[in-house]
Amino acid sequence: MEKQMPQTENRERIPWQADRPAKTLRFDLTTYFGDCQSLVNQALEGALPKKEVFPSKIHEAMRYSIFAGGKRIRPILCIAASEACGGGRREVLPVACALEMIHTFSLIHDDLPAMDDDNLRRGIPTNHKVFGEATAILAGDALVSQAFVLLGRLGDTHPDPRRVLQIIHDIALATGSLGMVGGQLLDLDSEGKKLDLPHLQRLHELKTGRLITVSITSGAKLVSDSVEKIAALERYGAAVGLAFQIADDILDIEGGVELGKDIGSDQANNKATYPSIVGMEQARKTAHTLGKEAMGSLKDFGEEADPLRALASFIVERKK
Amino acid sequence: MEKQMPQTENRERIPWQADRPAKTLRFDLTTYFGDCQSLVNQALEGALPKKEVFPSKIHEAMRYSIFAGGKRIRPILCIAASEACGGGRREVLPVACALEMIHTFSLIHDDLPAMDDDNLRRGIPTNHKVFGEATAILAGDALVSQAFVLLGRLGDTHPDPRRVLQIIHDIALATGSLGMVGGQLLDLDSEGKKLDLPHLQRLHELKTGRLITVSITSGAKLVSDSVEKIAALERYGAAVGLAFQIADDILDIEGGVELGKDIGSDQANNKATYPSIVGMEQARKTAHTLGKEAMGSLKDFGEEADPLRALASFIVERKK
Repeated sequence: MEKQMPQTENRERIPWQADRPAKTLRFDLTTYFGDCQSLVNQALEGALPKKEVFPSKIHEAMRYSIFAGGKRIRPILCIAASEACGGGRREVLPVACALEMIHTFSLIHDDLPAMDDDNLRRGIPTNHKVFGEATAILAGDALVSQAFVLLGRLGDTHPDPRRVLQIIHDIALATGSLGMVGGQLLDLDSEGKKLDLPHLQRLHELKTGRLITVSITSGAKLVSDSVEKIAALERYGAAVGLAFQIADDILDIEGGVELGKDIGSDQANNKATYPSIVGMEQARKTAHTLGKEAMGSLKDFGEEADPLRALASFIVERKK
Repeated sequence: MEKQMPQTENRERIPWQADRPAKTLRFDLTTYFGDCQSLVNQALEGALPKKEVFPSKIHEAMRYSIFAGGKRIRPILCIAASEACGGGRREVLPVACALEMIHTFSLIHDDLPAMDDDNLRRGIPTNHKVFGEATAILAGDALVSQAFVLLGRLGDTHPDPRRVLQIIHDIALATGSLGMVGGQLLDLDSEGKKLDLPHLQRLHELKTGRLITVSITSGAKLVSDSVEKIAALERYGAAVGLAFQIADDILDIEGGVELGKDIGSDQANNKATYPSIVGMEQARKTAHTLGKEAMGSLKDFGEEADPLRALASFIVERKK
């Protein structure tokens, strides 16, 4: 998996980075990804009750989906945002893990028979296929609860508990009816309907965008109280969040087996996508424009934001 | 409904209160219930997005179950615990509302076809019967998220944000795999099995007990940092939480139409209950013993704990 991850070494491939000094362009995203993934996976291991803990079946189900090969994009964005604000990696790990738990909870519920009815996710059977529908619903419910256990526990160590409460508020808002969960409802309701672009954008903004954006802002807020930096990273997050979903739509059509789910499943589910509304060429252009916007929002940051720059280009150009 | 609520005016009916001064026994629980319910309902009204807010369907579904006639026991226990520690009613309303949202989320998910498959709840159709299964799952998901939005927002006003973080941790823990959600899994797994008493007690402790207990301790912790008071209220909560479930089991057999769901639905679902394991008489005795324990844990509190005393006797003796 790591070998296939795009590098940002070639300035020709990333035209909006032309004004960055040459050394930036050699930022090694593959190594960064690998390092952060290891850290996050290790932290997730400790942040979930062990399989043996009573009631063991639910912990087995929670762990099954958490350790099913996710790329940890949200945790890594959170870590990269912390570093862009002068913070470290380890100090944001509880927030990074909470974000991954919330993301995984949404995947488990989205895959349910009553929702998208998917049998495969990341190349392996979905949670309800292995553990049954009731346990899958409860495993999702328990993951979102565990996320807030982790966030609440930050009160033991964080020097500014009010900032932690702000982050909890932001993450919960991005998760609920005005964020990811509301977006999933719009997504289900849009099946078989002809959506126009503003509606599709709104759907994407809620379903994927809000949690991506809050992954970035929460990483920043945990380590910094600079209003300017956080505002800049909010703009970065909004651009990258939308770009992420457009890239996902493109991948659904062109993705091949790497994506680990059936190619064209959006088409099969009769879902509106960027390419289906504006055409493949325009979808690609929009993704690149958003990538430029994301880069532009980082203009006042130095090298410490190179991971975020590399992540933006990865998100726009990703092949899986 | 209020007329049928038990009063605690008659000292003969509540033997474990015999050592309390006479005026205590005249505490008017009906008025207290009514006042607190009004406060909580008003606060819930403001704590949820309006029906019209986009995406409106999910807000309609959330509000349908929140305003479906719940007794607000958890919020009222939270308020009463605050008062027992010298706090007020209004200051704990965000926590009280969060607890009711989490409780309602659990009811919506428990009623799903993949779980208990119930058509009626509190005398009206269950959420998925009205809005469909997908929306019901998402409405539950959105309610638990909204609970943490409310709790996170307490950071704007509460003088001691670390205490709020502790409460968030406690509530999330009581909700997840080691609490309510884990208990629901045990409940589903126990169907058709012959449980012994320790297993049934453990199931109840997780499924109902933890959230009841945390309703009380969170109300106390929000307004007080007295270790002794909080420890006493934890004992009160543990006793009352178990008594609540035993009373529920008894009501399921004897409850009549007032309960708003099919009588004997536990039997129909082949579920172990207190009466089915130890017999009706012993179940009643256990509930009363727990009521005494709850009262005993309040011995160092004065009149300010009268609402909690009346609530304990209501929970043990309730008829609906």
